[in-house]
Amino acid sequence: MDENELVRRLVSIGWRGSRAVRLGPGDDAAFLRGGLVLSTDLAVEGVHFRLDWVSAEEAGFRAGAAALSDLAAMGAVPEALLVSLAVPGDPSLAEALQRGVRNAGDRVGVAIIGGDLSRSPGPAVVDVVAAGRARTVVTRGAAEVGQGVWVSGSLGGAAAAVAAWLAGREPHRRARERFAAPPDRVPLGVALAADGLACAMIDVSDGLVADARRVAAASGVMIRIATDAVPVDAGAGDLNLALEGGEDYELMFTAPAGTESRIRALGQEMAVTLTRIGRVEEGTGVVLEDDRGRHPVRSRGGYDHFAPPDTGGIP
Amino acid sequence: MDENELVRRLVSIGWRGSRAVRLGPGDDAAFLRGGLVLSTDLAVEGVHFRLDWVSAEEAGFRAGAAALSDLAAMGAVPEALLVSLAVPGDPSLAEALQRGVRNAGDRVGVAIIGGDLSRSPGPAVVDVVAAGRARTVVTRGAAEVGQGVWVSGSLGGAAAAVAAWLAGREPHRRARERFAAPPDRVPLGVALAADGLACAMIDVSDGLVADARRVAAASGVMIRIATDAVPVDAGAGDLNLALEGGEDYELMFTAPAGTESRIRALGQEMAVTLTRIGRVEEGTGVVLEDDRGRHPVRSRGGYDHFAPPDTGGIP
Repeated sequence: MDENELVRRLVSIGWRGSRAVRLGPGDDAAFLRGGLVLSTDLAVEGVHFRLDWVSAEEAGFRAGAAALSDLAAMGAVPEALLVSLAVPGDPSLAEALQRGVRNAGDRVGVAIIGGDLSRSPGPAVVDVVAAGRARTVVTRGAAEVGQGVWVSGSLGGAAAAVAAWLAGREPHRRARERFAAPPDRVPLGVALAADGLACAMIDVSDGLVADARRVAAASGVMIRIATDAVPVDAGAGDLNLALEGGEDYELMFTAPAGTESRIRALGQEMAVTLTRIGRVEEGTGVVLEDDRGRHPVRSRGGYDHFAPPDTGGIP
Repeated sequence: MDENELVRRLVSIGWRGSRAVRLGPGDDAAFLRGGLVLSTDLAVEGVHFRLDWVSAEEAGFRAGAAALSDLAAMGAVPEALLVSLAVPGDPSLAEALQRGVRNAGDRVGVAIIGGDLSRSPGPAVVDVVAAGRARTVVTRGAAEVGQGVWVSGSLGGAAAAVAAWLAGREPHRRARERFAAPPDRVPLGVALAADGLACAMIDVSDGLVADARRVAAASGVMIRIATDAVPVDAGAGDLNLALEGGEDYELMFTAPAGTESRIRALGQEMAVTLTRIGRVEEGTGVVLEDDRGRHPVRSRGGYDHFAPPDTGGIP
């Protein structure tokens, strides 16, 4: 059973319709009556980060940024964070992780309003809950044929850093930065939603292909990506890392036809590169295409926590 | 540094005033603008539960019940749960934990609306976020001199089960039940709050004395407990377990003078024993007293995740 299948099973165990809930599991965050948007993001030492790669404060920052990225992908304005920490003996590790999450919250002006603390007999674990607010949310399920497919920033940097560490090398400074300090796309996600420029949106956390596939599946469409257009991070320099490497925390969204110039103007205003990488078509799944035609999807794409270690990801 | 001190440090790192937040860290749950109540509760294998003691489904149930208990202590009506799971290789463990949390949610009519999933290279970890709603919340800080101190149900059963397991014995069936299936005090907490019968309230998760001390500190009062009145669980049979054992998930609250008969009537209506165990006086801390006078507080009371194993708790 792969991770996607296990997640489907967990959702089917836990979910039933609820009057209090406007959008249940299956998107970047849940949406409650009254406009509350809630997401939780788990970071486990040895799976999501290693403390010989990044400092505990950086690990906390990543965990906080990842949770906030889910709100960005819904177009929600963050209001608060909660942090659950399980740490081995050393209390200073908990403090450093907390400082990191706090710094990620500071970037968008929210505080840590609660959490829980435990000793861990194993790895350090950080679970960050992000709470935000929205009148309506941008889901993964509203992509329509004819829309353009866009991505913010650049991709592959975080995966390049992990690949370097796994090969026993120090990563390129820029790649390391992409891993340790994911970008803040909250202002962008909120603006795209407010201006009606994002119809469907997702944060690119498991890899562009894997996340595009989720949007395609949720929307009942096919997403065609022009691989030549994909913005490969300067710290990656490898298209495959940009297509399949995870943890970039950029936003992928679909936009109505005729909005190209407004989107470019918004990108300039926010100082974020926004790149059109493809379009929504009839069909299913994701098709990659370069100048010479179809580009085979090399793997099913994306990081699978439950895959055998030799298929990629942090062992 | 003990756990309380570490928690204080974490709060001071993460917290700053926020327009979106009506009540920040330091109580059973946080309270946001718009009436949302949020709490998160972490359960770590080997610290909060052991899978040779309880089934994974029971461990999940406990984690869910513990998170909901925080809402009960605020007088909030639960609306939704989120569940983050980190599990070693076996996916069926994740499913069993999820079923357990789901069952705890079912008891109060809420669903699991989201969460996260990771492999764990160490123990299984369950972090449950409980979201609820309230117009106003009952805090720990509103105990006033002259009020009565009450507790629901009975105490010490869960700690008796742990003590038995640690001694290599099977616990008494009733004690085991108290550990594996904490009571649902949500209807009671909501009713006490709605009827104005609970001025200050806390859930007894770290032991009666430790939690009473928190109410005393938050309210700037002294709490005098008549140890002869403390309802010792039939599965415990030991006053010290009832005073200092944690994880009972009962409610302790302070009530205005003259409400005794209304409280007893409410208890009857809800089929929950409510026992008056003491009163709020001027001073600080907790004083234990039996028929013959003061009863020395044997330890600082309560479970400390960061204390050396020989001072109690699951090693």
